[in-house]
Amino acid sequence: MKTVAIYPGSFDPVTLGHLSVLKRAAGLFSEVVVVVVHNPSKDPLFSIAERVALFEAAAKDLGANIRFSGLAEGLLVDHAKSLGATAIIKGFRTTADIEYELPMAQVNRDLSAIETVFVPAEPGYGYVSSSLVKEVVRLGGDASGYVSESVLTALRERLSQ
Amino acid sequence: MKTVAIYPGSFDPVTLGHLSVLKRAAGLFSEVVVVVVHNPSKDPLFSIAERVALFEAAAKDLGANIRFSGLAEGLLVDHAKSLGATAIIKGFRTTADIEYELPMAQVNRDLSAIETVFVPAEPGYGYVSSSLVKEVVRLGGDASGYVSESVLTALRERLSQ
Amino acid sequence: MKTVAIYPGSFDPVTLGHLSVLKRAAGLFSEVVVVVVHNPSKDPLFSIAERVALFEAAAKDLGANIRFSGLAEGLLVDHAKSLGATAIIKGFRTTADIEYELPMAQVNRDLSAIETVFVPAEPGYGYVSSSLVKEVVRLGGDASGYVSESVLTALRERLSQ
Amino acid sequence: MKTVAIYPGSFDPVTLGHLSVLKRAAGLFSEVVVVVVHNPSKDPLFSIAERVALFEAAAKDLGANIRFSGLAEGLLVDHAKSLGATAIIKGFRTTADIEYELPMAQVNRDLSAIETVFVPAEPGYGYVSSSLVKEVVRLGGDASGYVSESVLTALRERLSQ
Amino acid sequence: MKTVAIYPGSFDPVTLGHLSVLKRAAGLFSEVVVVVVHNPSKDPLFSIAERVALFEAAAKDLGANIRFSGLAEGLLVDHAKSLGATAIIKGFRTTADIEYELPMAQVNRDLSAIETVFVPAEPGYGYVSSSLVKEVVRLGGDASGYVSESVLTALRERLSQ
Amino acid sequence: MKTVAIYPGSFDPVTLGHLSVLKRAAGLFSEVVVVVVHNPSKDPLFSIAERVALFEAAAKDLGANIRFSGLAEGLLVDHAKSLGATAIIKGFRTTADIEYELPMAQVNRDLSAIETVFVPAEPGYGYVSSSLVKEVVRLGGDASGYVSESVLTALRERLSQ
Repeated sequence: MKTVAIYPGSFDPVTLGHLSVLKRAAGLFSEVVVVVVHNPSKDPLFSIAERVALFEAAAKDLGANIRFSGLAEGLLVDHAKSLGATAIIKGFRTTADIEYELPMAQVNRDLSAIETVFVPAEPGYGYVSSSLVKEVVRLGGDASGYVSESVLTALRERLSQ
Repeated sequence: MKTVAIYPGSFDPVTLGHLSVLKRAAGLFSEVVVVVVHNPSKDPLFSIAERVALFEAAAKDLGANIRFSGLAEGLLVDHAKSLGATAIIKGFRTTADIEYELPMAQVNRDLSAIETVFVPAEPGYGYVSSSLVKEVVRLGGDASGYVSESVLTALRERLSQ
Repeated sequence: MKTVAIYPGSFDPVTLGHLSVLKRAAGLFSEVVVVVVHNPSKDPLFSIAERVALFEAAAKDLGANIRFSGLAEGLLVDHAKSLGATAIIKGFRTTADIEYELPMAQVNRDLSAIETVFVPAEPGYGYVSSSLVKEVVRLGGDASGYVSESVLTALRERLSQ
Repeated sequence: MKTVAIYPGSFDPVTLGHLSVLKRAAGLFSEVVVVVVHNPSKDPLFSIAERVALFEAAAKDLGANIRFSGLAEGLLVDHAKSLGATAIIKGFRTTADIEYELPMAQVNRDLSAIETVFVPAEPGYGYVSSSLVKEVVRLGGDASGYVSESVLTALRERLSQ
Repeated sequence: MKTVAIYPGSFDPVTLGHLSVLKRAAGLFSEVVVVVVHNPSKDPLFSIAERVALFEAAAKDLGANIRFSGLAEGLLVDHAKSLGATAIIKGFRTTADIEYELPMAQVNRDLSAIETVFVPAEPGYGYVSSSLVKEVVRLGGDASGYVSESVLTALRERLSQ
Repeated sequence: MKTVAIYPGSFDPVTLGHLSVLKRAAGLFSEVVVVVVHNPSKDPLFSIAERVALFEAAAKDLGANIRFSGLAEGLLVDHAKSLGATAIIKGFRTTADIEYELPMAQVNRDLSAIETVFVPAEPGYGYVSSSLVKEVVRLGGDASGYVSESVLTALRERLSQ
C-alpha cells in the first residue's frame, strides 16, 4: 500500500518550522507532496512559483519521497485526489492553530474521503510564522534562526524594494 | 515503504468515536495496531484483556490492516518500536484534548523518532468519551448511540454488579 | 410572563447551523426575534433585506413564535429593548467563538439589563460558518449539506456574477 | 407559554457568583429551579440537604419565581422533565468551564429534548469557585467577598471541626 | 538594582483597563515606560503623539516612576534596550490575548535578552478593549465606565467628524 | 527601590523548565525567593525540605539574588508579605496553565496587594512538567534532558524503592 499525503499552505515564505514538519511527515508516508496554495484573503509577498522554488531549494536534502506543486485555484481536495493522496498534513504551533483549521478539515472530509492529520511543530520552532518572520525582517531584526539562508536573502531583497 | 502506526488508549471501553478514528486511520497507513494501555491514575472497569477483546469484536469489519495488543507496563514508544511503528495516532474531540496530550507527544518524540499525529473525531462523535458513557449507563440512560451492542451489554453487566 | 429573546448575527447567508440554533431557541422562549445586523468590518455578499428574506424563507417551518428584523445602525441593546427582549442568543461552535463574543456580551450587560446566553451548535453543524460556505461555493464545491436549497441557489447566482 | 429552566450544580457551598447567575437567569425564564446534585467524584463538605438550605437562605431575595430541589441519584434530564423544564442553565467563568461541560450538554440533548444554555458570570465574580473559597477559608483567609454571611459562618464551623 | 520595564501597545485610545495594568506594573518595577507603538495593520484613530498625550493626562496620578514615549518605527526590543529595560509588560484579558502575543514574546527573547511578563487585567476591566470602546461610542452608547473623561471627550470629537 | 518577587510551586522535583524561569525572573527583580509549597491535593514524592535542597543544589549558579524557603501551611500571600514581596511569579507552558492559575491570582490580589505575573517557559522546556518527568523515570525512560543530574539521581533512588 502506497500512502500519499499532501502538505498544503501559503508558505510565504517557507520557514524552518515548515521544513521540520515536512521532514517528519516524510517519515510517516510513502510520499508527501507540498502544495503551495493561493490564499485570496492575504496579500502574498512572493508568487506561487517563487514560493515553490524557495521551498524546493530549502528542502532539497529532506528526502527522496517529497514532491512539490502549486494550486492557484480550485478545491484543495480535488487537487489531493488527482495526486492520489488520502491525507492532508497540517502542522500546528498552538491549539489556536487547530481551532482555526478544524472547520476546514471537517468540510474537506465531507467533500471527499480525505482526512486531515495535525502534526505538532517542534517546540523550538513553535512560535515561528511566515508573517512574524516578514515583520522581523521588515523592521531590521535578525531572522536567520527562523528561515534558510536562501529564503532570508530573498526576503531582504523583496522587502527592501 | 510499509507505514505502521499505533493507536494507543485506555479504551475502557471502546466507543463509536474510537472506532471512527480507527477506521479512518486504517485508510492512511499500511497497518494500524491498537494498543490498549494501562493507566495507573485511572481505576479501569475492564481488564486490559477484556478491553482488547471488546475492541476486536467491535472493529472486526473495519479493515484487514488492523491489529491489536495490550501494554501493561513499560514505555509506549518502546512498544511502538517493537511493532515497527513510526507514528502514534491520537483522536481528539476538542483542543482541550490536545493541550492534555501534547506534552506527552513531545516527550515521546524526544525518547524515540516516533511522531504523534492528531486526527479529529467525527463531529457526531466529538463529545463521546468512555467515562461519559459509563456515567450514562450507571445512571440508567440510553447509551446505544455511543457504543456497539456488545460493548453496551458488557457495560450493563459490569455496572449492575 | 412572556419571555422574549433576540438572535442577532450577520447571517450572510443563513446556514443550517443557524437554523438549528434558532429552532432550539424557539423552544426556550415565548418569542424569538432574528435580528440581521450590519457589520461594518465585513463586506457582505447580500444586503440586510436580502439576508432577512433568505432567513425567513429557510425558517418558515420552525415555529409560530419567530419574527424577523434588520438593524442597519444603532446599538443592538436599544433595538432589543424596543422589542421587549431580555436575552440575546448566540450560538457557538467552539469556545473560540465565545472568546470572541464574550467582551461584547459583558458590554451589552453594562449598557442595558439584557443578558447574552450561549447555545451550543448541534455537533453535525458545529463547523459550518457563512464564510466557509461562501468559500466552498466560490471554489465549485458541494455546499448542499450546509445551507437550504433556496440559499444555495442565491449563493450560486451571486457568486457567479 | 410558561418557560421553565433548571440551574444544576454541586453548590458546595453556593457562592456570590452562583447567586449572580441565578438572579439573571430568573429574569429570563418564567421559573428557575435550582437543583443541587450529587457528584460521586467529589467529596462534598455539606450534604445535599445542607447545600439546598444554604442556597435557599442566600437567595431568598432574588425573585418569586425561584424554587429549589436536590437530586441524589438518577439522570439530570429525567429530573428536569419531571419539573417541566426545557432548559439547563450553566454559568461559566472562562471557556475552560465550557470545554468541560459541553460533552455532557450534548449527551443531555441526545437523551432528551432539553437544551443547555451557558450564561457568563459577572466579571467581578468570574474567578470565584466553591473549591477556591473552601481553600481560602481553610488557610485562614478572608472569603467574605465571595460568599454570603450565613455561608461563611457555615464554612468556618465545618472547616474548624 | 534599578529595574526598568516597558509597557507597549497601540493605546488607541488608552482605557481604564490599560491604566489599571500600568498602575500595578508601577508597583513591581523601579521604572515603567509606556511605549505607544505604530501598528501598520491597524488604521489608528489618533496619532502616536495624540495617544501619548491622552495616556499621560489619564495617568498623571498613577506614580512618579512612570514615563512615556512613542515608537514610530524600528524594533521594540531595540527601543527597550535604549531605555535600559529588561522586561516588556503585556496585560491580558483572556488567554486568547496570550495565544496572540506569545509568538512575538518568544521572538523578542531571541532578538534580545528582554523578557515579556503577562499581567492579568482586573476582572472588572477584563472585557474592555480600545476597539470595543470605539464601537460603543460610534453607535452612541455610554462608554464612561471604560475610559477617562478626557479620553471620552476626545473620542466623541474625533468620531463625530 | 528594591523589588522582591516570590516564585512558588510544588517543585516535586525541580525541572530544567523551572530553572529557566527562575534564571530569567532573577534578571527582572532585585531579589527572587523560591517558595516550595505544600499542595494537599497531590501526594508528593519528596518532602518540602528535600525539594528545597534539590532546587538549591540545581540553582546554585543562577544568581546571587535568589533565596529559598518552604511553606508548609498558611496563605501564600501572607508568606509573600513577610518576605517583602510585591509580585508572585508563575511560569507557564501553555495557556491551559494560565486558565488554571488565574482564579488563584485574582484571589491573591483580593487578599493582598500582591500581583501575579506570568512568565512564558522557554520553548524547548515548554512541555516538561514534574509529573511527566516522574512518569518517564518510573517507566525506565531517559529523563536526563529534563532535570539536573542530582535531581535525576534522587528520582531514580526514590522511585526504585
